[in-house]
Amino acid sequence: MSFCREILGPLPNEVLLKEYEAWWREGQAISDDVDRRGTPWLRMFDRFGNRVDEILYPPDYWKMLTKGYEAGAVWRVFEEDSILPFMLLGYVTAFHDPGLNCPYTVSLSTAVPLHKYGTSELQARFLPPMLRREGLPWQGATWMTEVKGGSDLGVAVETQARPAGDLWLLTGEKYFASNVGAELAVVAARPVGAPMNVRGLALYLLPKYREDGTLNYTVRRLKDKTGTRSVPTGEVELVESESFLLGRQEHGIYLILEVLNLSRVANAISAVALAQRAMADALSFAEQREAFGRKVLGHPLMHTQFRERLVDLRRSYALAWEAGSLLNEVWRESYPYSDRYHLFRLVAHLAKYWTAEIAAQTAKWAMEVHGGLGVLAEYSVERWFREAMVSAIWEGTPHRHILDGLEAMEKKGAHRLLFEHLSAVADDKELKDVSSQVEAHLHLSVEKREGTAEPLFWNLAKFTAKTLLRKLEGA
Amino acid sequence: MSFCREILGPLPNEVLLKEYEAWWREGQAISDDVDRRGTPWLRMFDRFGNRVDEILYPPDYWKMLTKGYEAGAVWRVFEEDSILPFMLLGYVTAFHDPGLNCPYTVSLSTAVPLHKYGTSELQARFLPPMLRREGLPWQGATWMTEVKGGSDLGVAVETQARPAGDLWLLTGEKYFASNVGAELAVVAARPVGAPMNVRGLALYLLPKYREDGTLNYTVRRLKDKTGTRSVPTGEVELVESESFLLGRQEHGIYLILEVLNLSRVANAISAVALAQRAMADALSFAEQREAFGRKVLGHPLMHTQFRERLVDLRRSYALAWEAGSLLNEVWRESYPYSDRYHLFRLVAHLAKYWTAEIAAQTAKWAMEVHGGLGVLAEYSVERWFREAMVSAIWEGTPHRHILDGLEAMEKKGAHRLLFEHLSAVADDKELKDVSSQVEAHLHLSVEKREGTAEPLFWNLAKFTAKTLLRKLEGA
Amino acid sequence: MSFCREILGPLPNEVLLKEYEAWWREGQAISDDVDRRGTPWLRMFDRFGNRVDEILYPPDYWKMLTKGYEAGAVWRVFEEDSILPFMLLGYVTAFHDPGLNCPYTVSLSTAVPLHKYGTSELQARFLPPMLRREGLPWQGATWMTEVKGGSDLGVAVETQARPAGDLWLLTGEKYFASNVGAELAVVAARPVGAPMNVRGLALYLLPKYREDGTLNYTVRRLKDKTGTRSVPTGEVELVESESFLLGRQEHGIYLILEVLNLSRVANAISAVALAQRAMADALSFAEQREAFGRKVLGHPLMHTQFRERLVDLRRSYALAWEAGSLLNEVWRESYPYSDRYHLFRLVAHLAKYWTAEIAAQTAKWAMEVHGGLGVLAEYSVERWFREAMVSAIWEGTPHRHILDGLEAMEKKGAHRLLFEHLSAVADDKELKDVSSQVEAHLHLSVEKREGTAEPLFWNLAKFTAKTLLRKLEGA
Amino acid sequence: MSFCREILGPLPNEVLLKEYEAWWREGQAISDDVDRRGTPWLRMFDRFGNRVDEILYPPDYWKMLTKGYEAGAVWRVFEEDSILPFMLLGYVTAFHDPGLNCPYTVSLSTAVPLHKYGTSELQARFLPPMLRREGLPWQGATWMTEVKGGSDLGVAVETQARPAGDLWLLTGEKYFASNVGAELAVVAARPVGAPMNVRGLALYLLPKYREDGTLNYTVRRLKDKTGTRSVPTGEVELVESESFLLGRQEHGIYLILEVLNLSRVANAISAVALAQRAMADALSFAEQREAFGRKVLGHPLMHTQFRERLVDLRRSYALAWEAGSLLNEVWRESYPYSDRYHLFRLVAHLAKYWTAEIAAQTAKWAMEVHGGLGVLAEYSVERWFREAMVSAIWEGTPHRHILDGLEAMEKKGAHRLLFEHLSAVADDKELKDVSSQVEAHLHLSVEKREGTAEPLFWNLAKFTAKTLLRKLEGA
Repeated sequence: MSFCREILGPLPNEVLLKEYEAWWREGQAISDDVDRRGTPWLRMFDRFGNRVDEILYPPDYWKMLTKGYEAGAVWRVFEEDSILPFMLLGYVTAFHDPGLNCPYTVSLSTAVPLHKYGTSELQARFLPPMLRREGLPWQGATWMTEVKGGSDLGVAVETQARPAGDLWLLTGEKYFASNVGAELAVVAARPVGAPMNVRGLALYLLPKYREDGTLNYTVRRLKDKTGTRSVPTGEVELVESESFLLGRQEHGIYLILEVLNLSRVANAISAVALAQRAMADALSFAEQREAFGRKVLGHPLMHTQFRERLVDLRRSYALAWEAGSLLNEVWRESYPYSDRYHLFRLVAHLAKYWTAEIAAQTAKWAMEVHGGLGVLAEYSVERWFREAMVSAIWEGTPHRHILDGLEAMEKKGAHRLLFEHLSAVADDKELKDVSSQVEAHLHLSVEKREGTAEPLFWNLAKFTAKTLLRKLEGA
Repeated sequence: MSFCREILGPLPNEVLLKEYEAWWREGQAISDDVDRRGTPWLRMFDRFGNRVDEILYPPDYWKMLTKGYEAGAVWRVFEEDSILPFMLLGYVTAFHDPGLNCPYTVSLSTAVPLHKYGTSELQARFLPPMLRREGLPWQGATWMTEVKGGSDLGVAVETQARPAGDLWLLTGEKYFASNVGAELAVVAARPVGAPMNVRGLALYLLPKYREDGTLNYTVRRLKDKTGTRSVPTGEVELVESESFLLGRQEHGIYLILEVLNLSRVANAISAVALAQRAMADALSFAEQREAFGRKVLGHPLMHTQFRERLVDLRRSYALAWEAGSLLNEVWRESYPYSDRYHLFRLVAHLAKYWTAEIAAQTAKWAMEVHGGLGVLAEYSVERWFREAMVSAIWEGTPHRHILDGLEAMEKKGAHRLLFEHLSAVADDKELKDVSSQVEAHLHLSVEKREGTAEPLFWNLAKFTAKTLLRKLEGA
Repeated sequence: MSFCREILGPLPNEVLLKEYEAWWREGQAISDDVDRRGTPWLRMFDRFGNRVDEILYPPDYWKMLTKGYEAGAVWRVFEEDSILPFMLLGYVTAFHDPGLNCPYTVSLSTAVPLHKYGTSELQARFLPPMLRREGLPWQGATWMTEVKGGSDLGVAVETQARPAGDLWLLTGEKYFASNVGAELAVVAARPVGAPMNVRGLALYLLPKYREDGTLNYTVRRLKDKTGTRSVPTGEVELVESESFLLGRQEHGIYLILEVLNLSRVANAISAVALAQRAMADALSFAEQREAFGRKVLGHPLMHTQFRERLVDLRRSYALAWEAGSLLNEVWRESYPYSDRYHLFRLVAHLAKYWTAEIAAQTAKWAMEVHGGLGVLAEYSVERWFREAMVSAIWEGTPHRHILDGLEAMEKKGAHRLLFEHLSAVADDKELKDVSSQVEAHLHLSVEKREGTAEPLFWNLAKFTAKTLLRKLEGA
Repeated sequence: MSFCREILGPLPNEVLLKEYEAWWREGQAISDDVDRRGTPWLRMFDRFGNRVDEILYPPDYWKMLTKGYEAGAVWRVFEEDSILPFMLLGYVTAFHDPGLNCPYTVSLSTAVPLHKYGTSELQARFLPPMLRREGLPWQGATWMTEVKGGSDLGVAVETQARPAGDLWLLTGEKYFASNVGAELAVVAARPVGAPMNVRGLALYLLPKYREDGTLNYTVRRLKDKTGTRSVPTGEVELVESESFLLGRQEHGIYLILEVLNLSRVANAISAVALAQRAMADALSFAEQREAFGRKVLGHPLMHTQFRERLVDLRRSYALAWEAGSLLNEVWRESYPYSDRYHLFRLVAHLAKYWTAEIAAQTAKWAMEVHGGLGVLAEYSVERWFREAMVSAIWEGTPHRHILDGLEAMEKKGAHRLLFEHLSAVADDKELKDVSSQVEAHLHLSVEKREGTAEPLFWNLAKFTAKTLLRKLEGA
């Protein structure tokens, strides 16, 4: 938190954040334990043959999870009509447990469309338990990906939705269902007869239990992930599962993308926190470990690396924070969107991409600082390294963000919005260079434009991050 | 192997290599199983209270391990008076199981100093079981690192050696003892009264059993490593353990470094094989998986990445192979060394450093190609990613190789030897640029020289790799 | 095997048995490893999203499994028209790995009804791969139990069978599917419209793959069992799974019981082998461990216990063997059955019940002989103890066998057949006592008859076992 | 607790017990989780190479453990000068987690000899932290057994004690060190020069840390036990470990036996609680599961078994409680002992032996009641079954208690003390029968006396238990 404060200046809810951060002195051991024990068990049946699909985390897990909800990771967003508390609490969470930020994110990503698009009846029924301030509230989840992949949803989503009175009955499978076991989920499905592309998708609200009290979805199994073990990811089976349409059916893909916006920003925030954590652990090691007659940190090469990485870390922070700030302006919008929304989209792609790369590199390097100890399951860096890779892939791989960012530039001129946004504080020459570089790139043939997009996107992200940090520091 | 052949041209022992590679169609499942089950058990005592320190791998493990020995990973080196068979077999091994290359490497690294420095009595006693051609031979191991670290051996080695007739009795602990359980090990220790620096170290040959048949060393525990689970790494306790001095006591540090030479080259070879494997798995995925109406491989961005990575892979190969070829010229040398030896040293530092970086980047990227599937323990890339990190840290972290490489340039003018070595085939301008860059760098102050050494070393490595590939291709 | 030989005299196929037993010197380590690693993984999907349901045992497992098939655990039964080879090979198997006897048993229990009741077309298609003599043949499996329980099949089986041309389509779930992954299974199901009791069940042959090459059944998960980990037990999901009716639909329950006959005899044989193994391990310990100035075995109390347990072990063997010999006479029968069949039924109930009890007691005691070492996962007795409990519960709990045995006496007068069968060798007085005890018991009210059946059944089993041993020894 | 109350009448500290029992509604999930995760990790070193020997239980474990201490499992014994609170709290603990009773027991078994035999200086230093009422107090441990065995301590203890001023320095290994990690332990060792038999042993108090703050003992590894995973059992290495002699050196063996007295009584109490728990779980299953048209419990055979087992359970309780009550009279005694002490010794042997047997049988049977579900790691009975076996072996195998009980009868006439003790309530005829049976037995030759002691001891235990229950019920 002191890192955030140093960069951002006075924070909203500082007392709250301090208390939450203080709790982690106790919470870290819980988090480490959850990671160490690997994938939790799934108890599918009780002794009498009833399907229960209970996830057997250690009891402390639920305590840890509850803390963040109580601090307001979800309910404060509605209370204060701002996602900033979510972002700040999420940063503190992810510094200690990057995977744990996922439940808060997907819960918020469920509450928001419910709030924006749910009927007043649905809201009255489902929002209050989600926004409960004491104890574990109802959790949300966002399930899009199916077995054929998560990038090209237009084709990969095979889950069918069949209307049945006020309800829709969903049948299909979700292959990467994060925070499985949640009381509510928003789910992408294809209404019967809708086209086999992204226009054919709609978004549904799926409760855990049917009206008759039985399980509305079952969990086939939990995934054995290399990281983020503090969020259970499972495969979900839907068989005529009761659900509610959110928004207009033909706008489904917009709603889905709005859901992803939140996840991407949260991922960027988490990635920065993770990078900061890996650096902090490397620092505490290098300050104490000796070699060749002095502390490891005292060696010039090591010292240079720490200094340079710190710069990148601060830039990452500035970029992630800007993505969040822009989202905070546009998260209430619906289709059709403003230019501000398109600007946000591009910044979000840059932020998700760049922060995750920085996090992965930093975690790898922190491991190297530890030498042989770094590869042992006994110490923390081995964990940050695993967590970082999930961070890099979740919510879209680098390829995805590069290409989607490119599209936002081509179709919406989002790069121009960005350059304008940065113009007040950017170095003029740099801005001009980058700008002409981008414009030139957009005139290439498709093959070339996409094929050589990576260095362009990296530069654009770095330039943006650097400029934004200057803005924050200049302030 | 076809990859090696394509770059190198006709290989020695091709039939043998083909057979060995064919065996891996069966062996891969064994290797995957060994990795999946994590750190093996250590059975310390039998039912009657006798210490046995037995490592409980699945029986298949021993079969897999034996294959490489039988193919000649060690014995052929002496038979053919060349380390090339070791390098080629090692490449095939590491393509399927990077960790498994370690036992062969440390066995060879034990046999070589025994062969170079052992008395004829020691050789007669210990070489034949190590060079056995059928069944599992006696294995070797190279134990230097202690709990205070593995970089600064001069200070960190606290194991004491006390003379006792023909024997020396060793007392101390080895903290990262790879291939623990080996029948023989070469061990760094400090003779009583020797100075507390690198000059005070000597190298000893330590058998597993004492003359009276009891265990000569005990294993405190096996390490829970994130990768390379097919070699058991343990903590070894030495209590008056019987051992034999190798070479002259005051030359100990030279012998130790000679041992490390082999490991570094082997690590470079393994890293390239690992990178090739990660690429191969990514390729087989991208060729079959569809998104947005075509195979993933067909997307221009993906295609570019494959193409560029292939170039880096080939360059890595050329660099690693050159390190091996040079070692093959100088491995019989003893102190004082020739210029060729110093040239080798620098190339080895460049190769260990650069190939491991390329491997780690490639493994990370291969994971991203798989999208969400990449982070699941179920599929292979998650493993290559873990293996790659061990590869990057074992046998010296990047920091270590950068600084040691720098030293070789400063003290031995190794860069000049290198430039001369490359001059016939290098691009003249590039050579000149790199050369003046290096010379300028060496005139900086210590703080600057070390502090900014990383980009210099990266460039030098890349230039060397590129030039060497050109040489191979030009041939 | 020498134990069998000592009791039974010269055995058929002695050379074969010796070879098979000799193999276990290598096989034991495989078996121990499989047990140690716990429940294997189930790989449900390949990287491209195709369901594969692959059980990830260590590769050695398949080697171990193949050995018993090749030795003839199944094919010799048909070759020699005798189940004795199955019983003898099973004994040797279970001495080393009690769970491994299960695959052979269920494979035979699949081949037999196919041979007795399959159309010539079915036989021509499926028997040859099951009776293959080299490599791993097609395996069988017998899946009856569903989530509501395995005793009262008449009510618990909810799987429905719907006719579709020559095929029947099965839909439902099997909750304890042993040897899951088998190429063929015999499955209890209820044809549409059939009554909700045992008369409403029929037996179907279910191949692993549909005609179109896709999976015909899927595995929901593998069960985490306390023992018998060398046979995978899973939950099977049937959705319109293609299958073939065996025999006449209305005789289904008879076919099901015939399948169970084989399992019960095999369980009895395995239990005796397990008890012998536990005793052998206890003996080897007691012969070497010292306390109070002599070997543990030398203490009078210990000595008495070994002597008495050996008597029980030999009696168990005689009882199990008799059950097998009688089965060998009647296994070709179909409904309606001979008196010999009913005699067999009673002996089988006595044998399954009593041998499992003796095995459980012996394993517990063998653990105690080892003192504190006995509770450690490191040594063998802890395993035998876990295995024994599965043995006691599989194929019917004690309650089940007591009550079913009682029914055979009430309805078929099976006790009289038994007494007559034993009369030539039994002690006259004992026979008379037991006989009148049983007759008196059968005249009690239902409540009393069932409520107090346990000591009666125990005595009857013990008397039978004792008398049968006398017969074998007298011979 | 209601079970205790029903048998014993009003209990001391009822409110306290109720609160403690109520806590377990939350605690059970913690306990189950600790069991499920198997043997915990041992973190031997911190990142800087300092030995720390930290046991990595989930954080909740410590919370669970603290609850019993805070409730008074140890401090109340001194507060109320009575071991009854320890026994009652222990019963409630063991009902939920049989292994967790061990830490309380060994802590008390450390505090008691410190209180009886420690110098006032030692007491002032070490008792207050052990009797702390809030938070986790210092824990104790009782380490006797070495690698050669735990029965014949006179020979098996090889740990040497060397005097050094006020301290003694201990060197050796303890092979089954329960509650390893405890802040204090009482340890059997042999002073230099003492004879190689039980007379040569003395008892020492061993703190976890030396005067200089470093670890006073190290943990070689944690044992992989089949049960009681909620107490860490390890192997302890002592190298010149600082310790304090307790009592007079030549009375060491008496002090050691006094320590064991407490453990045996605690084990008996735990075994009964475990048996009750297994029955309770079986009951809840049998009340709800249906077969053959009625609840499983409704079947006469099942009903009989429940009724009979309940009788045995109540008898076990009476026997265990009497052992505790007698101990409560004599626990302050020192050598030479009263007849009451010898009576206690015999009752303790009978109780430890018989209750553990009943517990093991009950757990096995409870598993059978669950049918196939019973062998799954998913449900509770599989755990009780594993726990029960540890209970049967810990604190002396059946053999040990039978023979030691026999010795107490031979040497101290303890049987006569017992018969006199029971005479007021025993059935006269039964008492006379048992009495003459015992007397006759004691006149047999050693070989026969020991060799046939088991049925005699069983009968004597059963008679004693039955009579004691009658006493409690009559009251």
